[in-house]
Amino acid sequence: MCRWLAYSGSSMLLDAVLYRPEHSLINQSLHARMGVETTNGDGFGIGWYSATAGNGDGTPAVFRDIAPAWNNRNLRELAAHVSSHLFFAHVRASTGSAIQQTNCHPFRHGRWLWMHNGSIADFPRLQRDLCLAVDPALFPAIEGSTDSEVMFYLAVTFGLDQDVPGAVARMAGLVERLGKEHGIAEPLQMTLAISDGEYLWAFRYSSGGAARSLFYSSRAETVRHLHPEVEYLREISDVSRIVVSEPLGDLPGVWNELPQASYTVIPSAPDRDWLPFVPEFR
Amino acid sequence: MCRWLAYSGSSMLLDAVLYRPEHSLINQSLHARMGVETTNGDGFGIGWYSATAGNGDGTPAVFRDIAPAWNNRNLRELAAHVSSHLFFAHVRASTGSAIQQTNCHPFRHGRWLWMHNGSIADFPRLQRDLCLAVDPALFPAIEGSTDSEVMFYLAVTFGLDQDVPGAVARMAGLVERLGKEHGIAEPLQMTLAISDGEYLWAFRYSSGGAARSLFYSSRAETVRHLHPEVEYLREISDVSRIVVSEPLGDLPGVWNELPQASYTVIPSAPDRDWLPFVPEFR
Amino acid sequence: MCRWLAYSGSSMLLDAVLYRPEHSLINQSLHARMGVETTNGDGFGIGWYSATAGNGDGTPAVFRDIAPAWNNRNLRELAAHVSSHLFFAHVRASTGSAIQQTNCHPFRHGRWLWMHNGSIADFPRLQRDLCLAVDPALFPAIEGSTDSEVMFYLAVTFGLDQDVPGAVARMAGLVERLGKEHGIAEPLQMTLAISDGEYLWAFRYSSGGAARSLFYSSRAETVRHLHPEVEYLREISDVSRIVVSEPLGDLPGVWNELPQASYTVIPSAPDRDWLPFVPEFR
Amino acid sequence: MCRWLAYSGSSMLLDAVLYRPEHSLINQSLHARMGVETTNGDGFGIGWYSATAGNGDGTPAVFRDIAPAWNNRNLRELAAHVSSHLFFAHVRASTGSAIQQTNCHPFRHGRWLWMHNGSIADFPRLQRDLCLAVDPALFPAIEGSTDSEVMFYLAVTFGLDQDVPGAVARMAGLVERLGKEHGIAEPLQMTLAISDGEYLWAFRYSSGGAARSLFYSSRAETVRHLHPEVEYLREISDVSRIVVSEPLGDLPGVWNELPQASYTVIPSAPDRDWLPFVPEFR
Repeated sequence: MCRWLAYSGSSMLLDAVLYRPEHSLINQSLHARMGVETTNGDGFGIGWYSATAGNGDGTPAVFRDIAPAWNNRNLRELAAHVSSHLFFAHVRASTGSAIQQTNCHPFRHGRWLWMHNGSIADFPRLQRDLCLAVDPALFPAIEGSTDSEVMFYLAVTFGLDQDVPGAVARMAGLVERLGKEHGIAEPLQMTLAISDGEYLWAFRYSSGGAARSLFYSSRAETVRHLHPEVEYLREISDVSRIVVSEPLGDLPGVWNELPQASYTVIPSAPDRDWLPFVPEFR
Repeated sequence: MCRWLAYSGSSMLLDAVLYRPEHSLINQSLHARMGVETTNGDGFGIGWYSATAGNGDGTPAVFRDIAPAWNNRNLRELAAHVSSHLFFAHVRASTGSAIQQTNCHPFRHGRWLWMHNGSIADFPRLQRDLCLAVDPALFPAIEGSTDSEVMFYLAVTFGLDQDVPGAVARMAGLVERLGKEHGIAEPLQMTLAISDGEYLWAFRYSSGGAARSLFYSSRAETVRHLHPEVEYLREISDVSRIVVSEPLGDLPGVWNELPQASYTVIPSAPDRDWLPFVPEFR
Repeated sequence: MCRWLAYSGSSMLLDAVLYRPEHSLINQSLHARMGVETTNGDGFGIGWYSATAGNGDGTPAVFRDIAPAWNNRNLRELAAHVSSHLFFAHVRASTGSAIQQTNCHPFRHGRWLWMHNGSIADFPRLQRDLCLAVDPALFPAIEGSTDSEVMFYLAVTFGLDQDVPGAVARMAGLVERLGKEHGIAEPLQMTLAISDGEYLWAFRYSSGGAARSLFYSSRAETVRHLHPEVEYLREISDVSRIVVSEPLGDLPGVWNELPQASYTVIPSAPDRDWLPFVPEFR
Repeated sequence: MCRWLAYSGSSMLLDAVLYRPEHSLINQSLHARMGVETTNGDGFGIGWYSATAGNGDGTPAVFRDIAPAWNNRNLRELAAHVSSHLFFAHVRASTGSAIQQTNCHPFRHGRWLWMHNGSIADFPRLQRDLCLAVDPALFPAIEGSTDSEVMFYLAVTFGLDQDVPGAVARMAGLVERLGKEHGIAEPLQMTLAISDGEYLWAFRYSSGGAARSLFYSSRAETVRHLHPEVEYLREISDVSRIVVSEPLGDLPGVWNELPQASYTVIPSAPDRDWLPFVPEFR
């Protein structure tokens, strides 16, 4: 199990949400409260979109390391010097797969970033069939040995470029179908963050109905009204939102649980924060 | 704060005491019960004496890494293939000093191994004076930035080769004297393991009287009698002893707390397990 | 391209052949003479069989790291304290695949060790088809992203347990057949070392006929006669042999080139050092 | 010995000078031409000043790693996404001191960056005396074990904040005086880059008169005139300059050797590129 955070909004120094909050993600790497594991020390990663840099093609930057996040000086340096309007951060607790950069989240393909908390139950039994369902042209792009990366390339195969919720639904449907064919009762457990640099999607779903925790911040306007004294909230624009495995603090009114079997898109529609998510079987 | 284990006795695969016990040291790296920190994920180290190998000069081997112990495959490999009659293991929780091999325990000088749990309070204020008290010929041997390593070279300077308890007492006395000159109320907090490949010394002391926990195993004869069913105890010879920051399990009668301000030598005298420890001021 | 060394013979400290010779493998990691690349700094690994340790099941130990071999203190410590009658060492120069432990040689499966120098040309185009040819039960055991590891599991699939030269011939035949189906002129380039803890096999083969260099040492008797002054040779028993990518020194009469398209088994038959190798197509 | 590069000028993606030139610094990490060592694979570091980020206090960012630069994916990511008007990069070849982040360049103190190629001859014999000459308040800031870092803190002690050439001259004078007292013929060998975020100083000096190579680029105007076809030169403003251990390419007229015993300041005075450097003895 892991912990992750995704931010979308006004351009902000990563430090402001990664280190400064009371129960920050970096703090969660050492002392998670809601995770299956309290320690998430098996590597970490961040990914961010730059307004101007890169090759100008919108490819996000990815920085991943196999060491724990809490003692990593390079991460602290980057967080204090890199600003972004859309960034991901992930702290990993391996359930057995190797400790290597290619198993650290976020994963990247073209302009897409992807990170995951959860697992495919009994993954070694399903791994080969899932890999075979990946577009053969994408097969060599799978560099690591995690279920999360295979899920990503399945979603790319199933049309992530055209329809994010649809591609995720078809990926989830395949995992569930194959899982059930192998007699696995609850094949899929996931919270997901996905972005193309413009929108941020977050999903919460589990075959058994009890997905890992996932929270999104209230609209900035509401939050600032409730907590005018909190520094990092003041810098957040009206369209800014944070999605995170567990709340960054205990402020009432700031954190909302994303319901089971649902997803959100940020910036979200004015009238609703989330939509239901249902796997699609073919 | 850290956790450590030292073993002296019949030659044994490291795995038997590092991984197999219920609350093993590797388990303590992730879930310590008695430490100030529950996670000891800022590097680790092992040191061992070989009966036959090395250059035949008795120099122990040291293997240290900046990654957490719990997910380290190389450590697991070594533990499953290296046997020793006297070995150390240490899992580190840094209180701010850099995550680097030269800050990982055990430290080695000639045939000596040294590892430490605790700290010198306000070390940056005392560091220069303590370093100046180290034998100038040894000064360049200090490779890292920990208080623990400086304590080691002070003890070497003060006669570790001739008189272990005396050298440690003089080191502790110097730390307390300098600490008090700088207005530090409780300068020293330590549990220490020291060996020359023949004997194993362990110390427990704190200026304030409340040193970190330290336990030693009962005589093997007693232990086997109490717990004939426990596998790793069966392999232990009559002279085998384990000293460890916190017990490896909950078996009654196996683990004895080393009293505050005391030390033990293994193999120990037949009639007493420990002696009082008092810093020596000069 | 990489450099490797395999030793079989009387039990010997790894240091004696890894560090002490004039042009040792560790030296080759920094200054290879015959390799395509002069620097082999993208990770390293050693594997060794213990007479007594492990779980008593003959599983060899593997120690791998993503750092260069030449500056690795842990490797130097192990080499000075671990003895073995059969060990492998490998220094890696990546041609693009990730720098991670699971891409470092030697690879292990059960009691088998495997290491490789060379490459499958245009591997990304063949990777999926090759992976599909691996026994589905072994598919999840592939942890890294190298051609070398896939070649290993293909050989296991094709009967390594029963017939080493046959399994390697079938693996090579498959690579060549698939390569040619994809229009790749010279699909395979390899020197291989393989062991089960009892025998050591080494192969040299290239589809184009110009395989990377590979040398084996002369019978110890001959060598000692020629060079009575060389220390590390004196310790070698009559059955001891070293196979290595490039000679460990310039002593005349010590190093023999393994011919193109051939393999050797150690201990070898009294009357011949090598046999021809021909891929097997099915 | 090491290789380094410092850039000052218009804000530029690090990639443009670190990776794109024909004989880039990253290429020099694997194949230096003019260094004592051809491989600089014992860690690397970059440091950069941000126009806007950090805590707004002008502290530069530092990113250092113990792995080789040539295979480091994180470095490539940062180089492709971070822009700066003043940045340093360094690839290290250790002459024995530990491979750890705190021994990697650049070093930072407040708003200052410092990097070094060269060495203090027989450093272990001088180390203690040099450390004692460091301002006691700065002593605990020395985290590593290199001569380079001690030289930095000596320069800070001797007034780097007020007078860079004077502070460096006094540091060099102390090294030479102590060296000669210990009978060391040629105590100091250095090329240095120093910055406060506004100016860039580079020094070339050796006690024996033959300092390591150091080059600075011609004025941008001249360079663009000579080589209108070279992409990375087109982006450089008129005040942009690169100082580097060895030229980034073979373009005639672009690279000028900084004379022995001299230093340069960038932006430089209109009428001269460098000034003589003489150690100052007290």
